[in-house]
Amino acid sequence: MHHFYREGFAVIEKVVAHVESNRDRYIERLFEFLRIPSVSTDPDAVPAMKQTAQWVLDVLTGCGIEARIQPTDGHPAVLGDTGPADGGPTVLVYGHYDVQPTGDESLWDSKPFEPVVRDGRIYARGSADDKGQVLTHLLAAEAWKKVAGKLPVRIKFLIEGEEEIGSVNLDKLIESHVKELACDYVCLSDTCKFSPDIPAITYGTKGLLYKEVVYRGCTTDLHSGTFGGSVPNPGNAIAALIAKMKDPENRVRIPGFYDDVVESSTKELAALRALPFDEAEYARSIGARGLDGEKGYSTMERRWLRPTLDVNGLLCGFTGEGSMTVLPASAMCKVSMRLVPNQTPEKISAGFDEFVAANTPEGIDCEIKNFASAGPYMCPLDNDGLQRAAKAVECGFGVAPAMIREGGSLPILPMFKKLLGAESIMMGYCLANCNAHGPNEFLVVDDFIKGITTGAYLPHTMAS
Amino acid sequence: MHHFYREGFAVIEKVVAHVESNRDRYIERLFEFLRIPSVSTDPDAVPAMKQTAQWVLDVLTGCGIEARIQPTDGHPAVLGDTGPADGGPTVLVYGHYDVQPTGDESLWDSKPFEPVVRDGRIYARGSADDKGQVLTHLLAAEAWKKVAGKLPVRIKFLIEGEEEIGSVNLDKLIESHVKELACDYVCLSDTCKFSPDIPAITYGTKGLLYKEVVYRGCTTDLHSGTFGGSVPNPGNAIAALIAKMKDPENRVRIPGFYDDVVESSTKELAALRALPFDEAEYARSIGARGLDGEKGYSTMERRWLRPTLDVNGLLCGFTGEGSMTVLPASAMCKVSMRLVPNQTPEKISAGFDEFVAANTPEGIDCEIKNFASAGPYMCPLDNDGLQRAAKAVECGFGVAPAMIREGGSLPILPMFKKLLGAESIMMGYCLANCNAHGPNEFLVVDDFIKGITTGAYLPHTMAS
Repeated sequence: MHHFYREGFAVIEKVVAHVESNRDRYIERLFEFLRIPSVSTDPDAVPAMKQTAQWVLDVLTGCGIEARIQPTDGHPAVLGDTGPADGGPTVLVYGHYDVQPTGDESLWDSKPFEPVVRDGRIYARGSADDKGQVLTHLLAAEAWKKVAGKLPVRIKFLIEGEEEIGSVNLDKLIESHVKELACDYVCLSDTCKFSPDIPAITYGTKGLLYKEVVYRGCTTDLHSGTFGGSVPNPGNAIAALIAKMKDPENRVRIPGFYDDVVESSTKELAALRALPFDEAEYARSIGARGLDGEKGYSTMERRWLRPTLDVNGLLCGFTGEGSMTVLPASAMCKVSMRLVPNQTPEKISAGFDEFVAANTPEGIDCEIKNFASAGPYMCPLDNDGLQRAAKAVECGFGVAPAMIREGGSLPILPMFKKLLGAESIMMGYCLANCNAHGPNEFLVVDDFIKGITTGAYLPHTMAS
Repeated sequence: MHHFYREGFAVIEKVVAHVESNRDRYIERLFEFLRIPSVSTDPDAVPAMKQTAQWVLDVLTGCGIEARIQPTDGHPAVLGDTGPADGGPTVLVYGHYDVQPTGDESLWDSKPFEPVVRDGRIYARGSADDKGQVLTHLLAAEAWKKVAGKLPVRIKFLIEGEEEIGSVNLDKLIESHVKELACDYVCLSDTCKFSPDIPAITYGTKGLLYKEVVYRGCTTDLHSGTFGGSVPNPGNAIAALIAKMKDPENRVRIPGFYDDVVESSTKELAALRALPFDEAEYARSIGARGLDGEKGYSTMERRWLRPTLDVNGLLCGFTGEGSMTVLPASAMCKVSMRLVPNQTPEKISAGFDEFVAANTPEGIDCEIKNFASAGPYMCPLDNDGLQRAAKAVECGFGVAPAMIREGGSLPILPMFKKLLGAESIMMGYCLANCNAHGPNEFLVVDDFIKGITTGAYLPHTMAS
């Protein structure tokens, strides 16, 4: 299948053979990585975090890759650099060695930091997110170093320890190391396959704008009988506000909301429509009683291509069991919008605030709190690096990847674009139901190995 | 001022003089009553409840009124009966000897069960609600017995111990004692004056219908990025439902909602408009930033005469600090409607359920929970007993009472009407800010004494 890659053909075959012959050793290496409880939110985990960064460093330096620990104001990052200084594109592999907390350990079938293989899956906290996935790139580079002594293109590494706490020090780190991290593409493996049988490359994520609106009426809760009907009720008022945010066709009424939305190309739509997707099965998988959304678009278009607005939280008055006849003093809603190119959080935020001000009734005091704000990201579908990475995945998995977008948000991608000028390519190896942040997180053993093989092909396809 | 009452003139003057000369003794009697912590919600208060019922019984029997303890499935009631068996109307005095819990005692300036007089006010739990008010009727009857040996009309007493827990056994008690409790009017003192200077008779209360609507979309909370925009969001949907419940003029859109509303008479409206009422002062007193309600009606009309609909509670998704990008699985709202004659909870309930069903979008599962349901009550303004009670208040306080309605609900009033066929007359002596259910509950000493004087005039005006 890789008759395209004449140059270096013999070497890549050897590297892939090396990967395949080391399957059991690789699983054992991943187990070592998974056993260190690198929970970045845990203040007691500082020594474990250092130990994990050191473990990552050892993998890189152990095979002769130049690497070092880079301190931050929080948990340290590991930076690495290998391959020829000239010729071919430079790839920056980004990943993270920190993991989510375990949550209630009684919900796990085996201990979260004692990895085991059951039914062809590696179960442990971090197996999918992201230790198992980022390790594929480290082991692939190691394979190249061991088999060929060097890589065919320059690969840099940026493995941070704060992804699960919002990559709080990453922008400062990159800003102060722009030259050291300079690259043509950022490759990261922290996403999912399209389905168990079809790997995926994610080339776009939505932006996020998260707001809280607080409505206040009277200064205290009042008796709804004595005072109801004579003063504005913040609960009714906030419901009316939310209702106005969408028209009957589920289009968002925030002024200017759709002004900068780039319509998808015919090619992109054709590719999306060619993907196997069963609406009934989708609805069943998420326990939905029905599907609905912006009129004129399919479910997949709504999920990946169209901007959305959703209530994330509501709180007002009495919420316990039974009845309490309170005229509430205040009401709160949390609303988030997912943005697509070329919407900007700044412009949509201004439109939202203007909309709320225009639709807040007299007698209601309004406060808007701003939480998350992140831009959308999209790598052009015809980007050369994206195409080359897709070929690496096809070689590694034996199946062409689905080229997909994602409704979630990854603020680091627009940051890479802004600070490094590089497009990001997301090569995902875990399954959508891998419980990345829940109990019984897993990574399929075969996908782990195929990920390493893909990582081995990546410098080869980039160089070809 | 009481030149109307020729008959019995000399006797009533003596009874009133007796009341006035016993001012200090009456305060001491009320203090005794207030010292017993008759908190009906408190399972440990059973002995105190019995002691309080006995104390009430002793007041009645102590002056020769026939009375007894009537056990119920809960706390006992006290029943009494005195006066001529024939001639003139029979009045049933209703009241309650149980009190609200004290709440956080550190918020009280003096101990809740150690009554004190400060600045002309009696501070203690139960001073206003209802010990201080019900005692006025007991002491007035005692004054008649002591001065005249008998009352000019028949007075019965029904003093229960479960008002603060919803009068849960009262309907059974009345149903099984209909003959014993037979009366022409029920008089109760458990409401407020119109203002510190103007006493009030309340002749109408609103009904109450309290519902909870639960909307369910997907079976679990989902990631708002990955799934948002492709499935109905119960938070958005419940907001849209609530928004539809009222039109832009704040009229309720529940089908049939206004069908049975009796428009107020010209006389009633004229009386209401003649009451001193300052909208700005009202807004200030409740900390309202503005007043609003059903178009075409004044604030007082909205509060007393018009049916209303208010959100009492909202709960959905993430309600903590900050942001969580959750597509909520469910959303809940609590909505109450206050009803006026001749709306019935049954018909409005059916209309509400129909409205919710018609406005619930596909893909959303809806559950409606029914909590409180009570009919409205109104005593006709030209009712003879009401007019005679108003004269008693005018005699007692030296000021004609404001004839008012109330936005709150008292399910016992339609119950009295239904089971005893009697109209209810609410003679209120406490102030609106008396903290009936909060810390530092109080009753103005002068209002307590004027209440006893009013109670002394009541059999007199009823007999005239």
